Amino acid sequence: MPAPLRLGLAGLGTVGVGVVRIVQRHADLIAARAGRPVQVIAVSARDAARDRGVDLSAYAWEADPVALARRDDIDLFVEVMGGSEGPARLATEAAIDAGKDVVTANKALLAHHGQALAEAAETAGRVIRFEAAVAGGIPVIKALTEGLAGNRIGRVMGVMNGTCNYILTRMESAGLPYETVFEEARQLGYLEADPNLDVGGIDAGHKLSLLAAIAFGTRVSFDRVELEGIGKVSIDDIRHAADLGFRIKLLGVAQMTGRGLEQRMTPCLVPADSPLGQLQGGTNMVVLEGDAVGQIVLRGPGAGEGPTASAVMADVIDLARGVRLPTFGQPATSLVEPVAAAAATPAPHYLRMTLLDKPGALAKIATELGAAGISIDRMRQTQHQGAHAPVLIVTHKAAPQDVAHAMTRFAGTGVLVGEPVAIRIEEV
Amino acid sequence: MPAPLRLGLAGLGTVGVGVVRIVQRHADLIAARAGRPVQVIAVSARDAARDRGVDLSAYAWEADPVALARRDDIDLFVEVMGGSEGPARLATEAAIDAGKDVVTANKALLAHHGQALAEAAETAGRVIRFEAAVAGGIPVIKALTEGLAGNRIGRVMGVMNGTCNYILTRMESAGLPYETVFEEARQLGYLEADPNLDVGGIDAGHKLSLLAAIAFGTRVSFDRVELEGIGKVSIDDIRHAADLGFRIKLLGVAQMTGRGLEQRMTPCLVPADSPLGQLQGGTNMVVLEGDAVGQIVLRGPGAGEGPTASAVMADVIDLARGVRLPTFGQPATSLVEPVAAAAATPAPHYLRMTLLDKPGALAKIATELGAAGISIDRMRQTQHQGAHAPVLIVTHKAAPQDVAHAMTRFAGTGVLVGEPVAIRIEEV
Repeated sequence: MPAPLRLGLAGLGTVGVGVVRIVQRHADLIAARAGRPVQVIAVSARDAARDRGVDLSAYAWEADPVALARRDDIDLFVEVMGGSEGPARLATEAAIDAGKDVVTANKALLAHHGQALAEAAETAGRVIRFEAAVAGGIPVIKALTEGLAGNRIGRVMGVMNGTCNYILTRMESAGLPYETVFEEARQLGYLEADPNLDVGGIDAGHKLSLLAAIAFGTRVSFDRVELEGIGKVSIDDIRHAADLGFRIKLLGVAQMTGRGLEQRMTPCLVPADSPLGQLQGGTNMVVLEGDAVGQIVLRGPGAGEGPTASAVMADVIDLARGVRLPTFGQPATSLVEPVAAAAATPAPHYLRMTLLDKPGALAKIATELGAAGISIDRMRQTQHQGAHAPVLIVTHKAAPQDVAHAMTRFAGTGVLVGEPVAIRIEEV
Repeated sequence: MPAPLRLGLAGLGTVGVGVVRIVQRHADLIAARAGRPVQVIAVSARDAARDRGVDLSAYAWEADPVALARRDDIDLFVEVMGGSEGPARLATEAAIDAGKDVVTANKALLAHHGQALAEAAETAGRVIRFEAAVAGGIPVIKALTEGLAGNRIGRVMGVMNGTCNYILTRMESAGLPYETVFEEARQLGYLEADPNLDVGGIDAGHKLSLLAAIAFGTRVSFDRVELEGIGKVSIDDIRHAADLGFRIKLLGVAQMTGRGLEQRMTPCLVPADSPLGQLQGGTNMVVLEGDAVGQIVLRGPGAGEGPTASAVMADVIDLARGVRLPTFGQPATSLVEPVAAAAATPAPHYLRMTLLDKPGALAKIATELGAAGISIDRMRQTQHQGAHAPVLIVTHKAAPQDVAHAMTRFAGTGVLVGEPVAIRIEEV
């Protein structure tokens, strides 16, 4: 049997321990599939003394991940520390410099430095793989880069932050406001140390920017992702959306149109009976649309020890098998700087507002919509609350800027109580 | 840029034409992704004169696919003719013998001759790929062989014949009997020339046997797939199942248990609100379960020009990129002969029967179930039809042989009208 593939593993948190478990438990299975053994040689983590529930005694210990990355006795540097800067970045750069391939679960690192790292790797003749960085255990990088390689990709969509989806589905099922469920999620340990990475859409935005690069042959441009978190999603909107046959999801959409590349990670309504609408709890889903294949939907666990380690090991075993592809599916130097679309593709919108209960109020709103060129698909006036009349409107397809313009015009009608709400309805 | 990958394409039906369209339309995209051009050099089909709506003038024409497979000016033989014997088999064998790699969409060929072909290819240092043979455009072979390579696979399930799923969902939505919808499907051109390939479960069984080989490292053993088509699924059972919260699917299940390998392609009940239960029309779905990743669900078009050609091109581009894996994910000579499980894993069952409307009838049935060690989860006596009382029973988990035994014992009770029905409820 050929020589083993020798790993240096940086990071012994949940994912790192999961990788160790798979390497130890499935040594024979992996050797049979890879055609050679896969071994962990050395590890690195902040606390050498902590009991992690796995036997690390056979591995060398490096206090410094950079030193680990440069060890002569490893072929492959596995980075599961996280963070876009600091040790993760330094060690990844060191690994490439030292002639090692890299497998990483680090979406933040690649969202910010993916282009530079991919170019450095290609110059050095090395490979960076990152299946675990997007949608956990779902092999979506592979499906997009390889499985759909014969397609021009039109659109990629996904629910890629399990915590946000947990919060939104729990709000609906328990009828609880955002703040209460957010606090629950925090106490359950579902939130990142900086919760804004989750609920602000940043983590999911990182993932979307990586998918977009592969899908469209463009440089990763996370700074052009339109980001809006779930903090403003109200239980009222969740309920009204449900009444209208929709669910609210933190939905990532990357789409190449004649006007450029659109990247959005924002709350959207989707049909309740669509695969995306039916997605409950922490599960992730990615939808890939290609000109030949049509629509492919991938669903699975987006986080956790086993699923993320499974994705890391897919990359490791690919490399053990000799599969070597460019980081983003084509040479990094051939990726083009994307033109960011000035505005999102037109779409139906959900509007909710409260009107004074007096004659002609609804007509004034309808007039403003008409003036903005927005036609109404459905309008529903719900039960009066005292002198106020809550109104729900589903528009036909409308440009987001026209919707925004109409929303500002509503204020001048004198019939509005409080702030109106507009949420995009993504056609899935 | 490196030399082009040169294809010989055997078969110019729907899939072959789709491959030509992609190669022509996306030449630049494919070259960027593969790092080299992909070109069709020569083609073969039965009728050279027919207008297929694509320009074939630049390609050499071979009347004989075997001659095509042996041409010196091709690197890769693409077989999209179909059929487990005859030209497809001969040409594939010739291609390997002549030192060509093979990409095939031919599930029947591999289900019957996969082991021999894989061994021949490995001896010759060549590669056989078959993404298009299973679940059309869904990159499921890649997901299982590569994406989940770090997992011990526990179970693989799938709805993998779109025609059967179309018939079953149409029966439910239109309230029509099997025979009527079968005839509709025939007139719509949804059925194979031999319809039993579809409705008898053979086509789907071929696919399941290929997934099982990859999942469990076993030799393809199609002859041990328990096969039952959809011809006996009645509109009554579809309706009653729906009332109980289930849908009936032609479901493939491959599962490795302590008692051996189970392979079943049979009508099953699945929860109506599960991803499998929600699958409508001709769409395919495959569910992969691994010990690390948990459950991954893949959904997409299972047939048609674009989806199938997309899968063929994924394999072609992999080969252009230099990705070379053993046919079934590990060397063919290392695949073991599976021990076929004597009986399927215990599962809940749906039972339907009609009883004479007289005192004690139900008690006699319940007594026989108890004697067979089968406990009842739910029992429902529906509206009387004259002197007859239709009865539905959902059992707790029970061994299929115990269910079968109880069914034969029912006849001796003297209270049964007609034949009772038992259908497995697969826990998904």
